[in-house]
Amino acid sequence: MFTFELEHTDGLARAGSINTDHGEIRTPVFMPVATQGSVKALDPTDLQTLGAQIVLGNAYHLYLRPGSQEIKEFGGLHSFMNWPKPILTDSGGFQGFSLQHLRKINPNGITFKSHIDGSSHELTPESVIQIQKEIASDIIMPLDVCLSPEASKTDFVEAMHLTSNWLRRSINYQNDSSSQALFGIVQGGLHADLRKESAHELSDYDLPGYSIGGLSVGETKEEMYPIVEITSNFLPQSKPRYLMGVGSPEDLVECVVRGIDMFDCVLPTRVARKGAMYTKYGRRNVTRAEYKDQNSPFDPDCDCYCCTNFTAGYIHHLFKAKEYLAYRLASIHNLRFLIRIMNDLRQAIQEGAIQEYRESFWKNYQVSDQTARINQKYSRLSQLEGTG
Amino acid sequence: MFTFELEHTDGLARAGSINTDHGEIRTPVFMPVATQGSVKALDPTDLQTLGAQIVLGNAYHLYLRPGSQEIKEFGGLHSFMNWPKPILTDSGGFQGFSLQHLRKINPNGITFKSHIDGSSHELTPESVIQIQKEIASDIIMPLDVCLSPEASKTDFVEAMHLTSNWLRRSINYQNDSSSQALFGIVQGGLHADLRKESAHELSDYDLPGYSIGGLSVGETKEEMYPIVEITSNFLPQSKPRYLMGVGSPEDLVECVVRGIDMFDCVLPTRVARKGAMYTKYGRRNVTRAEYKDQNSPFDPDCDCYCCTNFTAGYIHHLFKAKEYLAYRLASIHNLRFLIRIMNDLRQAIQEGAIQEYRESFWKNYQVSDQTARINQKYSRLSQLEGTG
Repeated sequence: MFTFELEHTDGLARAGSINTDHGEIRTPVFMPVATQGSVKALDPTDLQTLGAQIVLGNAYHLYLRPGSQEIKEFGGLHSFMNWPKPILTDSGGFQGFSLQHLRKINPNGITFKSHIDGSSHELTPESVIQIQKEIASDIIMPLDVCLSPEASKTDFVEAMHLTSNWLRRSINYQNDSSSQALFGIVQGGLHADLRKESAHELSDYDLPGYSIGGLSVGETKEEMYPIVEITSNFLPQSKPRYLMGVGSPEDLVECVVRGIDMFDCVLPTRVARKGAMYTKYGRRNVTRAEYKDQNSPFDPDCDCYCCTNFTAGYIHHLFKAKEYLAYRLASIHNLRFLIRIMNDLRQAIQEGAIQEYRESFWKNYQVSDQTARINQKYSRLSQLEGTG
Repeated sequence: MFTFELEHTDGLARAGSINTDHGEIRTPVFMPVATQGSVKALDPTDLQTLGAQIVLGNAYHLYLRPGSQEIKEFGGLHSFMNWPKPILTDSGGFQGFSLQHLRKINPNGITFKSHIDGSSHELTPESVIQIQKEIASDIIMPLDVCLSPEASKTDFVEAMHLTSNWLRRSINYQNDSSSQALFGIVQGGLHADLRKESAHELSDYDLPGYSIGGLSVGETKEEMYPIVEITSNFLPQSKPRYLMGVGSPEDLVECVVRGIDMFDCVLPTRVARKGAMYTKYGRRNVTRAEYKDQNSPFDPDCDCYCCTNFTAGYIHHLFKAKEYLAYRLASIHNLRFLIRIMNDLRQAIQEGAIQEYRESFWKNYQVSDQTARINQKYSRLSQLEGTG
């Protein structure tokens, strides 16, 4: 049984709690991404230790490999990956955007050429619900149409209507008695009027929660933040709001302030595998020479397994020596860093101190223009497979 | 302070305990390899959990990167890699063999061209002791000359004399009051008379322990086992005997039976990263189709983190999806498998039941000819860097 309780607000920011069959999720929440049933380089114990409350899988990827029927035979994704807490699955709609050269969108669904073996697969609103039924995730997404910000307004209108039509088919297909929470996905690109229309239309369905899709796909942060705020405010107060694919430290702060409850992003683990690790001053690359001799933790303020057990100099060495442990430790640190931000944001909201928290965050934190530009453009697109 | 106590014997097999400044090692023991200061894909907690008592580092590799002086400034390798238990370091003599095209051996030492940046480095018996002093490992190896089994007997005689000469220089260089235990390395290839001569010569130094080098470098198991037995028996009863670079399950059993106390090998973690995992029936590749649907542990008899938390089907999926977690889980399993064998061997020796154990091992275990041949030839040579 899925429920959401809004417990505190501070301005537009919200603190609440979601209940699922696999336990409670305190919001705002960041969800690590386990596209193929594994958060890259981490195990479920790592995730529990760093405080993950819910992870995200991808219906499209899991359908292709190992197969959703296969996962069903293992008792669902929780059991397959040995993760006892809640799981949200994305539908594959985003892959309809990120794997553009491998797909065709038509009114009935999306036809994909598998990136694994080239075989053809048609995802329909119905099959995507069926797949997620087999995966048995707690929160599921309908098939949607996600466009590049460069698409024309006419295209956005069309995509929005198709998304809305597919949502209707998804609801019809889903059994009413299902305990899986089907969220609606608001589309509309950077067009405030379309976002409003989409949000209002979806709200009428009285769904258990609402996602904001189609962002962090190439637009600037200056373009994204206002659209997040506008869209968020058109959604019902009493339901959780999930901003899909967004999750740099600064985005978490800025979008919680604008009313978002749930986030996911592959960026923290993807950049970690390149040595880019978060600090309260911004992102730093531990492979830089300045860390070679540092005989103290990478981040002295951090309570993660990496920072409490190893020095920055050792992490630097592991990256230089291309040791696998490097990828795991840096990923643990980045995820823990984000989860600590979420915990702090939640506490600030409870204390009515969200603006003070935001100010103190920005007093230290710096996003280089280059990092911001690159992240925004490539955070969700830099790997063909988009597997995290 | 390094001591060895021989507690039980059963035939030639021995059970004992080594004491070091970093704790006790119960023998026979298998030592996981952390060539560059990390057992590939694992962290120190994993190693403690799977029962590792001691790990092995490589002086040559650590001298090149991050640098032994650097490690000294981090308080030694124990502190650098956060491993509180004993560490043994190999000297780099083996790299004088495995990196043949990058080295020149002369009476004063071995000149290497770094595999990292092509720079030139001369390792001498003295510098190798100095490097290991900086690394601060508990058990250290002198520089030695390791040859291919195809070398002529004249070459083996020369290599043996040079190794012995270098040992003398190593002992002279090492401060008498050092708490680091310097082992002698017996060479002599497959020539029993040379092994005898080398073992006797080294025994005269009354060293804290003795290594058997130059095996598992291309000879067959039928050639290796008798030489292990002969050499082992020429060494003093009261000192630990370390068979360098050997460590497949069958080799552990057959060489403990022949009087060996200590082993190391990169094979268990190297093959794990290709999906080859040990079972009591032999090595099996979890990437094979037969494991795809297996909704039970890979090895139901195993108590490792991998087998107690995940199904074979999930491990299979992780390998197919190229998820990093696959490499870690399979490595944990293979190391735990070897350590359980060592624990069982020790217990069998204590109970005077080593032959029964050996028989029961071989009742199940099968080594395919191909596996045996490939392992024996490439276990220590299949990667240029030999980093594990």
